[in-house]
Amino acid sequence: MVKHSEKIAVLGAGSWGTALAMVLADNGHDVRLWGHNADHIQRINEEKKNEKYLPGILLPDGIQGYSQLEESLDSVKTIILAVPTKAIREVLNKIKGFAHSPFTIVHVSKGIEPDTHLRISEMIEDEMPESLVEDIVVLSGPSHAEEVSLRHPTTVTVSSLNMEAAKRVQDLFMNQNFRVYTNTDIIGVEIGGALKNIIALAAGIADGLGYGDNAKAALITRGLAEIARLGTKMGANPLTFSGLAGIGDLIVTCTSVHSRNWRAGNMLGKGMKLDDVLSSMGMVVEGVRTTKAAYQLSKKYDVNMPITDALYNILVNEVNPKDAVDRLMARGKTNEMDDLVNILGERLFEE
Amino acid sequence: MVKHSEKIAVLGAGSWGTALAMVLADNGHDVRLWGHNADHIQRINEEKKNEKYLPGILLPDGIQGYSQLEESLDSVKTIILAVPTKAIREVLNKIKGFAHSPFTIVHVSKGIEPDTHLRISEMIEDEMPESLVEDIVVLSGPSHAEEVSLRHPTTVTVSSLNMEAAKRVQDLFMNQNFRVYTNTDIIGVEIGGALKNIIALAAGIADGLGYGDNAKAALITRGLAEIARLGTKMGANPLTFSGLAGIGDLIVTCTSVHSRNWRAGNMLGKGMKLDDVLSSMGMVVEGVRTTKAAYQLSKKYDVNMPITDALYNILVNEVNPKDAVDRLMARGKTNEMDDLVNILGERLFEE
Repeated sequence: MVKHSEKIAVLGAGSWGTALAMVLADNGHDVRLWGHNADHIQRINEEKKNEKYLPGILLPDGIQGYSQLEESLDSVKTIILAVPTKAIREVLNKIKGFAHSPFTIVHVSKGIEPDTHLRISEMIEDEMPESLVEDIVVLSGPSHAEEVSLRHPTTVTVSSLNMEAAKRVQDLFMNQNFRVYTNTDIIGVEIGGALKNIIALAAGIADGLGYGDNAKAALITRGLAEIARLGTKMGANPLTFSGLAGIGDLIVTCTSVHSRNWRAGNMLGKGMKLDDVLSSMGMVVEGVRTTKAAYQLSKKYDVNMPITDALYNILVNEVNPKDAVDRLMARGKTNEMDDLVNILGERLFEE
Repeated sequence: MVKHSEKIAVLGAGSWGTALAMVLADNGHDVRLWGHNADHIQRINEEKKNEKYLPGILLPDGIQGYSQLEESLDSVKTIILAVPTKAIREVLNKIKGFAHSPFTIVHVSKGIEPDTHLRISEMIEDEMPESLVEDIVVLSGPSHAEEVSLRHPTTVTVSSLNMEAAKRVQDLFMNQNFRVYTNTDIIGVEIGGALKNIIALAAGIADGLGYGDNAKAALITRGLAEIARLGTKMGANPLTFSGLAGIGDLIVTCTSVHSRNWRAGNMLGKGMKLDDVLSSMGMVVEGVRTTKAAYQLSKKYDVNMPITDALYNILVNEVNPKDAVDRLMARGKTNEMDDLVNILGERLFEE
């Protein structure tokens, strides 16, 4: 595939950063893959593999590992920001220390900042001076890194306040295996990506309780409805939640055993204590932090979020998971459309 | 649970009819379970089990099997119609032969009649004289019969042109394990239930090709979009497709190995010929018939349905499944929101 080749830095040499670097390299770009761990990067360069995060996958030509951030960004105009949410400010802060010209920053993280309740693009805006930011773009959707690295068919959404920037990023990534849609609603794309982890925890709990596919499908469907309710109040377009960054990502996260959040929920459903679950996972379970943020946001925006409430009670108030799920089921009779119409509610009808 | 007890006939002693009979009996109703096979019914009555379709499950008191249709309907005002789609007209025709007073007919089938392209409620209207029909109600949603029979948490939607009838049926079924929502959009509920089987076939093919969770989530999401496009043109409320009878049912059908349509697709994806798949299944694969009906409807209503087209090409024109799926992925760049706005399109904005 012959494309205009560009120098692109992918910051974060975990599974997702590496898989995205592979897509860009397959498209003929000159990709610099930065990671903070020099040994890890050295192994990547020597072995042409990321054995730690994508074992067995041979990296294509065109990917060079860097452990010096400044060096990796030399003559680069496009940054793919693929570090964990909690490391974003730290990395941006370093970039501020040496950079002089503006970047298009494409973030691929999913979360809401604790306490500030900022979306990722807002965190970036907040942290970076205007002079260093050309555009901020988010890339999201149903996409296990492992499958992308195997070049299995995958679709994602890119969104930005500046649609020209989104289209430019669409061009960088689009190929036969990796299909990229644009979406004008950056708020919805970011909220959908962040809040899906709550529902993945709930789905894992239902599975851990042995409740089966009917209960899980109900949780996903009703979960989507409450995400859309909150998102709409925060300014998202409700239609986004019916797309790849909404229900698409939700389905992958809730039905795959690869999902960290699902696995954590599953252990909770089987009766493990939260502290034991978290220490046995040995890594961040984003959904736990997101549940707390979403719970606070639901109070702030006065939005009814019964599944989030149930999760919050399980995680924070140590309510027994079975009791919490059973209570969800026992709520009064409801007209499904009242809920759904409320989601679209004011926003769509007033336009 | 003390409720007003009613005589209710469940017509069809397969897995779904039997599971619904159990819900009604759990709620204290006097349930007559009719099946055309006298031996099968006799075993049910003797063993208090339906070993053929729900092996190992003990039926609660309050269910009596009948093999004589007229007898089963004596003093009954509510019929749960749980026979296969293609047997519906035959059963209604028999009822016409002896019945004198009107019924509320609750159908729980999913499909579109070949050739006529009628929804199930329209088939019932078409077949039954007005004097014998009080109301027609549809019950749909993500609900494996096996899980309902195990009293696992399950949610469904009921819909009718007469919401009083829908609420009455909601009351008959609602209990701690079986949560019933009402929805005013009978067209959307029936279309969602019927067309999901197309996407289940497609998801099975993707799995059979070994394409993974990303591709499947994309198919489900984009599949929902095209179902909603067609359904909206046929008069459905697009919001219904974000609910239990839309995305909810779609998720269960596409992610469960219990699903007949998914299994048929899976075999196609692995390279089996359609005829061999159908004969190895030994029963109707509703999605095959529905794909043909949906393909014709998409032409009639001038709706773009790329996944349905691909399925039609695989099933009817013997296009290689891998080529058809790869062609789906290779379509031009798209703005996701254009699609989604088109779904809501004229209908919502004009109201």
